[in-house]
Amino acid sequence: MALRDERVTLAHGGGGKAMRDLIEEVFTSVFAPPGMEDQARLQAEALAEPGARLAFTTDSYVVTPIEFPGGDIGKIAVCGTVNDLAVGGAAPLWLSAAFIIEEGTEIALLRRIVATMAREAEAAGVRIVTGDTKVVGRGACDGVFVTTAGVGVIPPGIEMAAGLVAPGDVAIVNGVLGDHGATILAARGDLALSSAIESDCAALGHLMVDVLVAAPGAKAARDLTRGGLASALNEIAEAAGCGIEIAEDALPLRAEVVGMCEILGLDPLYLANEGRLVVFVPEDQAEAALSAMRARPEGEGAVIVGRAVEGHKQVRMTTAFGGQRIVDMLVGEQLPRIC
Amino acid sequence: MALRDERVTLAHGGGGKAMRDLIEEVFTSVFAPPGMEDQARLQAEALAEPGARLAFTTDSYVVTPIEFPGGDIGKIAVCGTVNDLAVGGAAPLWLSAAFIIEEGTEIALLRRIVATMAREAEAAGVRIVTGDTKVVGRGACDGVFVTTAGVGVIPPGIEMAAGLVAPGDVAIVNGVLGDHGATILAARGDLALSSAIESDCAALGHLMVDVLVAAPGAKAARDLTRGGLASALNEIAEAAGCGIEIAEDALPLRAEVVGMCEILGLDPLYLANEGRLVVFVPEDQAEAALSAMRARPEGEGAVIVGRAVEGHKQVRMTTAFGGQRIVDMLVGEQLPRIC
Repeated sequence: MALRDERVTLAHGGGGKAMRDLIEEVFTSVFAPPGMEDQARLQAEALAEPGARLAFTTDSYVVTPIEFPGGDIGKIAVCGTVNDLAVGGAAPLWLSAAFIIEEGTEIALLRRIVATMAREAEAAGVRIVTGDTKVVGRGACDGVFVTTAGVGVIPPGIEMAAGLVAPGDVAIVNGVLGDHGATILAARGDLALSSAIESDCAALGHLMVDVLVAAPGAKAARDLTRGGLASALNEIAEAAGCGIEIAEDALPLRAEVVGMCEILGLDPLYLANEGRLVVFVPEDQAEAALSAMRARPEGEGAVIVGRAVEGHKQVRMTTAFGGQRIVDMLVGEQLPRIC
Repeated sequence: MALRDERVTLAHGGGGKAMRDLIEEVFTSVFAPPGMEDQARLQAEALAEPGARLAFTTDSYVVTPIEFPGGDIGKIAVCGTVNDLAVGGAAPLWLSAAFIIEEGTEIALLRRIVATMAREAEAAGVRIVTGDTKVVGRGACDGVFVTTAGVGVIPPGIEMAAGLVAPGDVAIVNGVLGDHGATILAARGDLALSSAIESDCAALGHLMVDVLVAAPGAKAARDLTRGGLASALNEIAEAAGCGIEIAEDALPLRAEVVGMCEILGLDPLYLANEGRLVVFVPEDQAEAALSAMRARPEGEGAVIVGRAVEGHKQVRMTTAFGGQRIVDMLVGEQLPRIC
């Protein structure tokens, strides 16, 4: 049955026929396999393996604008949760997707978001297996918010944790930094910036699997979302109880992003990414990890950016002029609703 | 460190120190055991058992008002997801909790919500193991929205599905209907109704375990949330391909709820509940199921409300006057943002 309405009404959240029609036509029929259940019942051989652990994570997404160059809220919602699982060494298996929808939202927009989610989930090798929709009145939320939770399996023997990083370990990122943050900034339009940059939003599950095969001694990884590379490195330094030194010259930065940051007084080290991670590996496995990353499209820009060191417990950067500065943790926000 | 702010600011969502302080002080320190991780890593013997399946479910909660007699959004968020797992025959294990918070929200309110969630999770025997917070600007959401996802395990041999219900099976509900819906209606205040009714919000995981022990042939259960008993019965009748007959005289309804519905032109059969379920069991196990329910506080009002029948595929009610009426599925909404 085709939905008669072009926009979401409060009736679509009321638990009756209108809600069922919306859910069936816009959501469950699109996710593959069709027929997403109210409660998903799942089996995975990988989970039954002795020593395997279940990984479980969640994130809400409130990005504005909802659609932007290189993606939309649905792409971030799938990739972000896949990445949260992947950086812990888990193979992502299943996602849930809960939607909070403002009355008046175009059904066509929902369809586009759901199509993106189905496509990204398939590419990432995960299934969206359960979901929910709530509708709130006009002005009670801003368009569409999406919350995904993810379940994955950590194979026996895989143990990744920031606390395992030790002096000498090498830090690798999988590509240029800050594209997502710069894209959102430009897409909001109120800065009158025009830019050809697209969000880096990408699922990194397959890349992490390849890295762990190539560099089985990998210690820890973090996706570089809110707070960017700087925040991730500070978290790792604190957990590991050692210092981290990076070189400004080594940072993969696009000239446009650096230029935009200079105009706006932002620091690209803190810009959000949605398809970037940093992984710490023992020095003798760094080349292997790099090659594994570069063999995949989402890692072709991979470079070594620094290493863990003894002697201090800070994140420090050698600047292009040869000086050194402390890269501290951000205090407040650089940009709200970036993801 | 004590938070200096009394209200949430955009900085609390920015990925920096302010966010970390908020998360650590208000959220992770309260959930037990403390130290909720960005990604939870879990092991359960029950999941490794041959034939066991994982159950996975999610719901967003947007209830208004956020606090009401008998509960708050945190209580609904925990109980609702526990109940979604339980009615499928799963033992609930772990929850995720994602918060979307409007700038300006009182930190004290967040603390109360989190305290409720911790208390309810403990009582229900589940752990809140992972979470997220996002902050949006004033007017971009209405206070606080909470999305929980839940993971549980369905033991080998347990198979509950609406499609298994067959003519002769008996329908039991665990207590009076509509208290939650009536409470929210009164709590909004714009109807100038005063009422002593409290929400029925309760976790039903333990009750379902007891029912399944007492009535191992139980076919299907549904929690009676949006759309109430009427919607749940219609869903079951449709999936089972049989009719369901209930008797108005048998319905457990409080006089206050009936009175409020009469004034407002509502039908209590469609009122939302947050601590009520219907379970279908073979006739010869009905008394055992009833006794098991009545032995628990959340089931002390349990009664048989009707049964599955042959001959038609509708939900029909014998009225108090001896007539019969069709109890159809709700078309639109009866009351927005009830959960």
